[in-house]
Amino acid sequence: MRTALTELLGVEHPLVGFNRSPAVVAAVTNAGGYGVLAASMYTPAELDAQLHWIEEQVQGRPYGVDLLVPEKFAVGDPDQLVASLRAQIPDEHRAFVDALLEEYGVPADAHDPREDTSDEIAAAINPAGAEALLDVAFSHRISMVANALGPPPADLVERAHAAGIVVASLVGARKHAERQLAAGVDVLVAQGTEAGGHTGTVATTVLTPEVVEIADGRPVLAAGGIATGDQMAAALALGAAGVWCGSVWLGSHEDITPLPVKEKFLAAGSSDTLRSRTITGKPARQLRSAWHDAWDRPDAPAPLPLPLQPMLIGRVWDRVHDAAAAGNPGAIALDTYFIGQVVGGFRELRGAGDITRDMVDGCRARLRALGELASS
Amino acid sequence: MRTALTELLGVEHPLVGFNRSPAVVAAVTNAGGYGVLAASMYTPAELDAQLHWIEEQVQGRPYGVDLLVPEKFAVGDPDQLVASLRAQIPDEHRAFVDALLEEYGVPADAHDPREDTSDEIAAAINPAGAEALLDVAFSHRISMVANALGPPPADLVERAHAAGIVVASLVGARKHAERQLAAGVDVLVAQGTEAGGHTGTVATTVLTPEVVEIADGRPVLAAGGIATGDQMAAALALGAAGVWCGSVWLGSHEDITPLPVKEKFLAAGSSDTLRSRTITGKPARQLRSAWHDAWDRPDAPAPLPLPLQPMLIGRVWDRVHDAAAAGNPGAIALDTYFIGQVVGGFRELRGAGDITRDMVDGCRARLRALGELASS
Repeated sequence: MRTALTELLGVEHPLVGFNRSPAVVAAVTNAGGYGVLAASMYTPAELDAQLHWIEEQVQGRPYGVDLLVPEKFAVGDPDQLVASLRAQIPDEHRAFVDALLEEYGVPADAHDPREDTSDEIAAAINPAGAEALLDVAFSHRISMVANALGPPPADLVERAHAAGIVVASLVGARKHAERQLAAGVDVLVAQGTEAGGHTGTVATTVLTPEVVEIADGRPVLAAGGIATGDQMAAALALGAAGVWCGSVWLGSHEDITPLPVKEKFLAAGSSDTLRSRTITGKPARQLRSAWHDAWDRPDAPAPLPLPLQPMLIGRVWDRVHDAAAAGNPGAIALDTYFIGQVVGGFRELRGAGDITRDMVDGCRARLRALGELASS
Repeated sequence: MRTALTELLGVEHPLVGFNRSPAVVAAVTNAGGYGVLAASMYTPAELDAQLHWIEEQVQGRPYGVDLLVPEKFAVGDPDQLVASLRAQIPDEHRAFVDALLEEYGVPADAHDPREDTSDEIAAAINPAGAEALLDVAFSHRISMVANALGPPPADLVERAHAAGIVVASLVGARKHAERQLAAGVDVLVAQGTEAGGHTGTVATTVLTPEVVEIADGRPVLAAGGIATGDQMAAALALGAAGVWCGSVWLGSHEDITPLPVKEKFLAAGSSDTLRSRTITGKPARQLRSAWHDAWDRPDAPAPLPLPLQPMLIGRVWDRVHDAAAAGNPGAIALDTYFIGQVVGGFRELRGAGDITRDMVDGCRARLRALGELASS
């Protein structure tokens, strides 16, 4: 299946696999797809180690990274960024989440050594932090850098193009795509509302052709609602040059999401997700849990803007994940993760390479059948 | 393009066109599609006249009707149904809409002769009214009856099957499809959240294969996000046996929606719709207007349940449509209609037959290209 994407990236199949687990990225690339590591959750040192490991696994096959690089500078003195941001989190919010975790019996961790790391990760979506991650990424053999937080800054585009690296951006509305094209991106990912993570309100069926219409020949990937070969074929029917899949890997063995959360995914239906601002401060689709019920209570505060809400939540979330992994029922009830409506199709955990091959084989079989249908 | 749907209905193309205008229904059928008349807004006498007119136009080609037939009996004494329902509308709601129309300068119509008709139409979605419309429909040469309000009552299915008439139902979630299958329907319409009218939250990309999976070979139509040949091809890729299109005809010359509303459609983007309970009492996707801003105000009452909200709104809506058609700016600001996210692709009004032919031709061309892509 040769498309504008496979030509541009020198990849066998028009299937991009996005995940925070290096093992998923390597498995997708080694199965002939294109793995993209979600890098924003890592410190520069962690990212460096992850990319070294991926390159050992893929033996020269292509892969990329995804970062959250803001176009404009955020509030606060860059030298004191973390401290400045931390001071902006209201006591009311800290008290609300502390009380919530106590209500659900999630153990405290007064001296959690990861507290500083969490703050650094949250601060990484500000320019200084993002720049350090970019330096690491550009020191490796990546062939694409994707940005999911508005148009990339001009220096990112210049730096990538000077190094022969493709720039991709995720968009949830036609007007966002117009801004991305003006910023010089090479690949647009049209992310429908049914996708996991930060989504808009327009569905993949409608958004994909809208973005294709204005992309002026640049490859457009469809994202959202794509976890099978049939859904991949549907994306190609909509004019996409390939697919960008995120949620499907959360049902893989290699993914690092805690097992109790994966078990919730396996039990969930397609109506069990919602778009919520309670994790990142921006609307992001995730599995509905007791966490969201709590933030909907009349006494709950409104979620904070990005990056304050993830700084508030980061350490809290470590506690919930750890307690859930240890079998704590309250933590399991609260626990969640970003995932799209395709979660309703999860039946069992599979290998990420098998998922890639099944999708590609299924897509090709469906395309052949559609070709025959045209003449029937 | 031979599918399980074209075989079942004896129709040339796997494309169903749903609209309240008999001229659209006839044009779709005469272009080789399958026209379905939205019958619930008509009185029995009006419906009888519309079906006579359609049959003159289509000269034996197949067509169907869509009704809102509740499975269970509603509140109120059937003999006094309209009066009983009318008495359940709170004064607060009448005062709110009266004040809103005054605020927007929509002229009053103290003696509107259509008032009783509106109430009858609203009451028609109760069993007695729906039964009278069904009697009319069954007296004509329809070959499919669709129901968009939960599983059809058993006597409807029996009566249809005895007459060789196919029963179809619209569903917005997998669990609804299971109930429809248990009720004995022959065709399921999987309506994604991006569709106009009453929708759930699950997108077409995800809902269609979910419904196909449990349909046990019965034809499944995809609805929502389908207004072009490419989108029709995507639906077939998802396993659908055809498409059910509603919104696309609102951009046709034949459709009876007031011209000022059609002009709002032509100007709208795909992000300009929302799901709201303010017209029918159930969440239905429609074009966002000043009407919705008003119902979002802190002093606004909550919308009433079906069928009270449409009874409250029916007469009001006649006033808004009439004033909008006469160029009243306030009425134009308030005016809206059910439409899906495909509205963002409307560029000009076209003939419904041309729309049908363009979709079918575009679909076939895309299917051929996909067949070639499989081997590339």
